[in-house]
Parts: sequence; C-alpha cells; structure tokens
Amino acid sequence: MRVPHGIDSKVFSAAVRELEGIVGQQWVFTSEEDLYLYRDAYSPFWGEAEERLASAAVSPESVEQVQAILRIANAHRIPIYPISTGRNLGYGGAAPVYSGSVVLDLKRMNRILEIDEQAASCLVEPGVSYFDLYRHIRANKLKLWIDCPDPGWGSLIGNALDHGNGYTMNPFRDHFAAHCGMEVVLANGDLVRTGMGALPGAKTWQQSRYGFGPDVDGIFSQGNSGVVTKMGFWLMAEPEAYLSGTVMVSRHADLVPLMKAFSVLNNTNAMMATTRIGSPLQLGRVFGVPPEPEHAALLDKPGVTPEELEAYGRKNDLPYWTIDLKFYGGTEVVEAQWTHAMRVFRSAIPDVQFAKGDRLTFPLSETQAEAVKDKASLGIPSLGAFFVGARSPNKPVGSHGHFWLSPILPLSAEAVLEAQKVFARAFREWGVAPLYRALPQLYSPRAFYLLFGFEVSEDPAVNRKTRETVRRMIKLAAEHGWGEYRTAPAFMDDVMNVYSYNNHALRGLYERIKDALDPNGILAAGRCGIWPKHLRNGRS
Amino acid sequence: MRVPHGIDSKVFSAAVRELEGIVGQQWVFTSEEDLYLYRDAYSPFWGEAEERLASAAVSPESVEQVQAILRIANAHRIPIYPISTGRNLGYGGAAPVYSGSVVLDLKRMNRILEIDEQAASCLVEPGVSYFDLYRHIRANKLKLWIDCPDPGWGSLIGNALDHGNGYTMNPFRDHFAAHCGMEVVLANGDLVRTGMGALPGAKTWQQSRYGFGPDVDGIFSQGNSGVVTKMGFWLMAEPEAYLSGTVMVSRHADLVPLMKAFSVLNNTNAMMATTRIGSPLQLGRVFGVPPEPEHAALLDKPGVTPEELEAYGRKNDLPYWTIDLKFYGGTEVVEAQWTHAMRVFRSAIPDVQFAKGDRLTFPLSETQAEAVKDKASLGIPSLGAFFVGARSPNKPVGSHGHFWLSPILPLSAEAVLEAQKVFARAFREWGVAPLYRALPQLYSPRAFYLLFGFEVSEDPAVNRKTRETVRRMIKLAAEHGWGEYRTAPAFMDDVMNVYSYNNHALRGLYERIKDALDPNGILAAGRCGIWPKHLRNGRS
Repeated sequence: MRVPHGIDSKVFSAAVRELEGIVGQQWVFTSEEDLYLYRDAYSPFWGEAEERLASAAVSPESVEQVQAILRIANAHRIPIYPISTGRNLGYGGAAPVYSGSVVLDLKRMNRILEIDEQAASCLVEPGVSYFDLYRHIRANKLKLWIDCPDPGWGSLIGNALDHGNGYTMNPFRDHFAAHCGMEVVLANGDLVRTGMGALPGAKTWQQSRYGFGPDVDGIFSQGNSGVVTKMGFWLMAEPEAYLSGTVMVSRHADLVPLMKAFSVLNNTNAMMATTRIGSPLQLGRVFGVPPEPEHAALLDKPGVTPEELEAYGRKNDLPYWTIDLKFYGGTEVVEAQWTHAMRVFRSAIPDVQFAKGDRLTFPLSETQAEAVKDKASLGIPSLGAFFVGARSPNKPVGSHGHFWLSPILPLSAEAVLEAQKVFARAFREWGVAPLYRALPQLYSPRAFYLLFGFEVSEDPAVNRKTRETVRRMIKLAAEHGWGEYRTAPAFMDDVMNVYSYNNHALRGLYERIKDALDPNGILAAGRCGIWPKHLRNGRS
Repeated sequence: MRVPHGIDSKVFSAAVRELEGIVGQQWVFTSEEDLYLYRDAYSPFWGEAEERLASAAVSPESVEQVQAILRIANAHRIPIYPISTGRNLGYGGAAPVYSGSVVLDLKRMNRILEIDEQAASCLVEPGVSYFDLYRHIRANKLKLWIDCPDPGWGSLIGNALDHGNGYTMNPFRDHFAAHCGMEVVLANGDLVRTGMGALPGAKTWQQSRYGFGPDVDGIFSQGNSGVVTKMGFWLMAEPEAYLSGTVMVSRHADLVPLMKAFSVLNNTNAMMATTRIGSPLQLGRVFGVPPEPEHAALLDKPGVTPEELEAYGRKNDLPYWTIDLKFYGGTEVVEAQWTHAMRVFRSAIPDVQFAKGDRLTFPLSETQAEAVKDKASLGIPSLGAFFVGARSPNKPVGSHGHFWLSPILPLSAEAVLEAQKVFARAFREWGVAPLYRALPQLYSPRAFYLLFGFEVSEDPAVNRKTRETVRRMIKLAAEHGWGEYRTAPAFMDDVMNVYSYNNHALRGLYERIKDALDPNGILAAGRCGIWPKHLRNGRS
C-alpha cells in the first residue's frame, strides 16, 4: 500500500480502516490496479518520479460521509484530494496535485436534486455529468437547455469550479458565473449553505445570486478550502430558433476593423454567444481539412508574408479571417440579428463577405439532435472533441495525451497579432516547433483565450522539453501582461508565481484564507499553487 | 470630542493627531458640526440613544494614505467604517453600523483611472459617482453607456459592493456581477489586486473575470475585511436603438400565464432588461396619479375581491396587471423582439393587450437626454427618485426619511400572490397600516424583490413601532423562505439571524474569514451582522 509522505504507515492503515467503516470496504481503493484509474492519463510526467499519484481513493455516497471522511483526515493529517468525476483530462484528470493524497471521489453523489422548468434552474451533486443532466431533460421533455464544454462527460460542478466554459449564450457559458447557490463541507467537516441557501426552507436558493453578507462562493472555485457537495445552476429556456452565420474578410489588416465591429455587437449584447475566430488562410492546418499542396507549401515557407497569403486567398477564394456568429431566440429575432450584424460589419469593411449557416427550430427530435454537427453550440453534450486528442484510432493507446495553455489576451486584433508575433519569435529562438499557430478562442465574452495544445509523449525526454517550453511560455506571456486562467497540475506553481503583484500579495491572501479554513492543511494541497502552511516552504 | 467605546480618550486624541499627520488637519473631522454630515439622515433611530454616530471622520486622497490610516487604527484598535460616498440613503448613508467608529470617507479618491471604448470597460476609484462617469463619457463623446441605480449621485464601487442594481440590460444591472477586477487594502494595510490585476502589467484586469486561483472578490462585497480602492466595470456599448412596450392583462388570475410566458422570454434572454410589474387596478395609489374616487373607494374597501376590481377595470379600461418590456439593439432587432414577445404572450393569453412605448435611436443630444422620462432605463443618472422620499416640498425638512425592506421571492405569480396574502394578513393582525401593498420589482433577472418602503418619523414612538413591524416582517418572511439581500444598519443583525441554516454555519464561515483577515476587528464592525471577535458576545 502506498502511504502519503510523512504519515506513519500504521496510522495510514488505521485511517483506511476508518474510511472503510464510513463508506464500506468496497468504496475504499488501495490496490495498484484500482489506483491506476486515478492516474492522470495525460500527465506530462507520465512514468517519471514526479508523476503525481494517489495513495488511496475513497468514494462516499452522502454529505454525511464526506463530513466523516474529512474529520478522519483531520484527526490523522491525511492529505485529501477531492474530485467530482475526475474527467478533466488535459488539466490533471483524477490525479491529486500533491502526490500521495487520498482522492475523495464524489462520483457516487450523482443526483439531480431539483430541476425547475419555469425558473430554468437546477440543483445537482458533484457526480452529475453534462450527459446525465441532458438525458434527464430529454427524458422528461423539459423545455430547457444546458451549456456544456467539450467533451460532455465531466461534472457540472467540477467544470464550474475550475472556471470552465461552454458554447451557448453569454449568461450560461461562463459556468461558474452561471451558478447560483452552493453547499460546501469545509475542511473541518462543517456543513455550510451559501447565498439564500443559508435561510432554512429558502425558496430562492437557485434563483437569487446573493443572500445576505459577503458572497463567499468564489473562494471555493479553483480553491482548496472546502468540498462542494451541491451547486445550483441557471439553465437556458429552449429558444424558438437558432441561426448561425460566418463573416469573412480577405486581408490580414482587416482583423482590426473586424474586431472593432465585433466589439460593438458584443458589448451591446447583440452578439450573445461564443464565437470562433478562424483564419482559413493563415491557419489552414488547424482542426480542419488539410490544405491544398500550394497552400501547404506557402504555410511551410519560412517568413511567408501576409501579402503572399492574401494573393493565394484571392486566387482560391479563401478568406484571411472569419468570425462565426450564433443567434438564439424568436424566429424573426435571429433573422433580424443576422441582418443587423451584417450591416454593422459592412459599414466597417465594405467588401466583407457573409455566409449564412444553419437555421434550426426547436425542439429537435432525437434523430435531428444526433445529426447536429456543432453540438456544443446547442448545448448537446458529446465526446466529439476527442478527435483532437492522442488516443485516436491512428495512434497507439499508451501514455499519449495532451494538455492546454491559454494566455488571456485583450479582445482586439492588435493583441492577437502581437501575441502571434511574440510566440512565433520565441519558438524560433527556442528551437521549438511552432505548435500550431494558436487561434484566439472566445470562451470569455470580453477576452481572448490564446489556446495552445501540447502533446504528451511516451518519451520522458520529449516531455521534459515540452515542460520546459511551457514554463518559458508562462513567463514570456506574463512579461507581456497575459496570464493563464487554469493549467495542468505540473504548472500550477509556475502560473501562480507570475501573479506576483506587490510581492505575491494575492497568494498571501489565498494562504490566509486557506489557513483559516483548513488549519491542518488536509485539502487539495498545492491546487492552483496554494499550499498549506506545512508544505509552503517547498513551493517553488 | 466623541471617543469610540472602550478607547482611552488620550489614546484617541493621539490617534487623531496621527491621522492628521497622514491626510492633513483639514481632512480629519471631529467637530459636532462636521460630523453632522456623517449622520444617517434617514435613520429609524434618529435622535434616539441607539442612533449610530461617528466619533470622527478621515478622508484620504490616496491608497498609501488608506494603508497608513489602517495601520494607525490597528495600532490603537480604533474602529473604522469605510464609505465610498455615503449616499446610500435608505440603507444607512454615511453613518457607521457600530456607533463610535471613525468614518473612512473615500470621496476624495474620485479618479476615473481608465476607460476603454473598444473594450467597453472602466477602472474607477470609490469616490467616482454615476454622474461623474456619465459626464466623463458625454464630454469625451464615447459610445458607452453606464447602468445606474436611482438616484445617480452614489458611488459605482459602493453600490456594487452593496449588491445594488440598475435598470438597463441583464449583464450590467447586477452591479457586483458587472465588475471586473479589484484593488483592496486589507484590514492590516496590505495592498492586494485580485483577478488578472495580480499579474504585474496585466493587459486584461478589466477584461477577464478570473485570474488564477480562487475568486476572492465576493468576500469584499457586503463585507468588512478590506477597503476596496479600485474596481473595474464592464460597460455597455451604445446600442443603435431602444424600444419599450407594455403588456396588459385584465384578470387577477392572468398573472399566472403572464409570468409563465415572461419566464420563457426571460430565460432565453429574449427579454434582456429590467422590467416592472404593475397593477393599475390593485395598486392604484403607488407611484402614480391618484385614483378616481370610485376606484379609491374600492381600494379602501376591506376585503375587496379581485372580481370587484376586475369589474371596475372592465368598465374603465384599466388592466389588472402590466409588464413593461424594454429592448436594446439594432433597429430591426428591437422591432423583431417586440413582435416575438407579443406572439409569446398572445399564445398564453389570447386577449392580452399591448401598448408600444418609446422608440429611440442613439446617440441622444443633450436636449433629448434631458427630456427622457425613464432616464434609468437608458443609463442616464438623475435625482428623480427623490420624489418618493420624505424631503419633498410638501413636507417639512427634518428627520424624515425612508428605508426599504425587500424579501426576495421566486419569479412566479404564485409566489407574489402568496406573499401579498401573507403580509396583508400580518398587517391586519398586527394592527399596522398596510404600507402600500408591495409590488414585486425585477431587479434580479431570476427573482422578485418585494419592495416595502417605510417612512421615518420625527416621533421616536412612531419609529419604535416601525422598527418592531420591520423585525416582525423579517421573521415572517424567513418563515416562508424569503430572505432579504440588504437592509438598513438597524436591522442587519435581525436579517443575519434568519440565515441560520445548520446553526448559523454561514455566519460562522464569515466570522472565520473576518478573524483571519482583520484579527484586531477594526473594520466596519457589525456590517451585515458580522462582528469582530471582541464584540461578538453583544450580537443579538
């Protein structure tokens, strides 16, 4: 049996038996075979000494059991790492940040406790996945939509707590911002309901964002001072119609007026949904059909100029930049929104081109729902996103995987062009393949996420090089004022380190809260670079 | 000179001299005359022993001065009560919650530090009022809107921290939710920037809601563990057009389908702005033209039935319930939204009536802006709301004033009708005039605020009776699962007391955070019922 660092093996064995007494023997896992499932399948440390491994896992089925587990952990100073479903591959999966922690796996707490069609809200436990909620809604023919990330197998609560995003309308796609009300077991086992939930018999726990006093929910997001056992979410009512369209411009320099016009629509809420910026010319290889040989040759040409690409684009009717727009609402409203959007773009860029996309009305039948290509935009969970990963039919199943790095940029053409230049230059200097030239993603309504993907290799030497590149990128981004909003466990200390204003004052505040709420430092040590007092000297 | 309770007068005098050394003698106030301005003009304790009074006030002009003041306060254990501008009449104004506190008046820190037209965001200090920001935008011809409460003389930061609301579109009218990024001086004088602000030279402090790690901003809202010295806000870009309309139904029972249809629009974001529910029939006397004598007689008739009112309504073409709708966006979009909304209501209530309201295009000239009646809906600050108060030309200027109590209800007809019944019965039982029969306000996108207004009298006996009524209402509301989201200082302990789930676990959490961040308990003692350790025994 693996034993957490610094814990006597007899103490640990006794604690495991106590845990078994709480949840039953079959829900405490200590065998190598069982714990394999709690490895980070996409770990950039795969197979190396630094890989973060669980010493055990325990899976409770109730809030009372969670409380009891935390009391045992406090009594013996056992490090605990809570996960909802642990499906967040690319950001650490089910593995603890601090090696040797006992994973607290909440997958069995998977009840949809409430769902209110008129109020368009729900209350769920951590084990409820996007698929679970979607299927419940379809089965009960409720006129409600969910907003899901890709892929949809993860936990609503886990994704929201990690500041994850989805693809439908603004008020729903920032999953933490779309939550309403929490129940939390604090590190010491105390049970707290926040917001209106603190009022016994509250009628608006999932309707009113605020109760009375400070809004404490945020400290449990990307944090490690409590275990969230219930969380409410605002859902979207099913709209009448959906309309998508694509805006296309032909010149490199058009990105500036394109983003200006887009900002006006975006900031008046005319453009209410996630969009994607594309560049069929510049980024011909990303997530799409392979480019024609002539195009491929251009893309591979060192120092290819925008003018050369533009010339190719004119000849082959390939836009330099595109923005996808998506509208949801009354049938006449989505048409008017598209007309209005075209007018706004045309007044900024006279030769802009448009392509009208899908127009759907709801509800969709099962067959229609299956046939939808861009499922995420309609809140239909899928596993389609795994086409991007390493475990595809073309690659051997092994330790391969991927993870992400997303410096956050201002929502402007200037910022994107600068960032592309900065990183391209750095990759040349570092002698690193240019990954793919990153495309800005519009996960946030007001900022770009410049999403870089990294492949994990079976060769530790390659992984070491990748880790070094990522660490350099984190620093380089920070020097330009671009920070990450989440990261894989391997890089949490690095990212936290660059948030250093006034001698790391914010980390100091996190640590004061951590010490107050988890004095024994048992919960999720190291998560987001926040360490308990007794492990703080070791932080980088 | 007044001296805070438990502080030696010599120690206090010495502390005052130290404060003078920091900000200059002219910015420390201790005379009766100066401190009169820090009284709560609308206090329900006006002139009684329990009225909460400042012992002094100090007004810094910089963050460094705020830090120095807090260090002095810690050294001498002086209670400090920070205010932004103290204009929040009806909820305590400039007076401290804990009598004898030194008011930390941030009115001199009134710079608009950044305003970005394309990003539609700003960074301001606590002394910046809605008027200040509005005038700055007009003067610089920026195509931006603000969202203001009524009245518009208060601080953006103060209102947001108190969970205040405005009247334009959903993403902006919950003022705390519309913020992005904070700078806070903690109780011990430490300076922290949150979110992306913790990254030195951050480019997205006002664009990205999340930095890395927990989202701590909420603990400084309605809280007392820090002094917010800078705060960013998302602004709305000026839309092309505005269109309003009113939906009218004739029967009492129509409220049920009316709210159901409204919920669909609301929860698909077709209806993106604040609305008002009205009842010209049932609430003829509220905020409007006095009713006709026959109508007045009906309203005064004990036990008048909905049917009697409906009959009067049919005869006089007066709707039972109304909902005002407001749309912002492209000219063709607002028309389509109104068409769509009418279709949705008509399918729920075949004989529903509609009245199209204002249709405006922007920008407005100064003259047009002056002439707008419903200024708040267009983000134009005003002092018009004071028509409701006691200090009108028809009343003597004196200790009169008003304050509010707002139980939060589910957004449904059933909840409104139940609450009206519950409170009407209680008022009869208690022998209390029925205030005005409260109308549900749609300050929140997903819940009703049942707004009750109370007048403050010159007669302490009347105020005592009012306070007793309010305390009973707080308990009565809580028994039905309806909680308040803010309240006047006189009732903060009462409101906090009803948020009692699991033996006041949430208050316990607030107190643990308070003790960790303000160990000497110097900041805003008693705010929202959160008391520092040394005063906790006295809480009710």
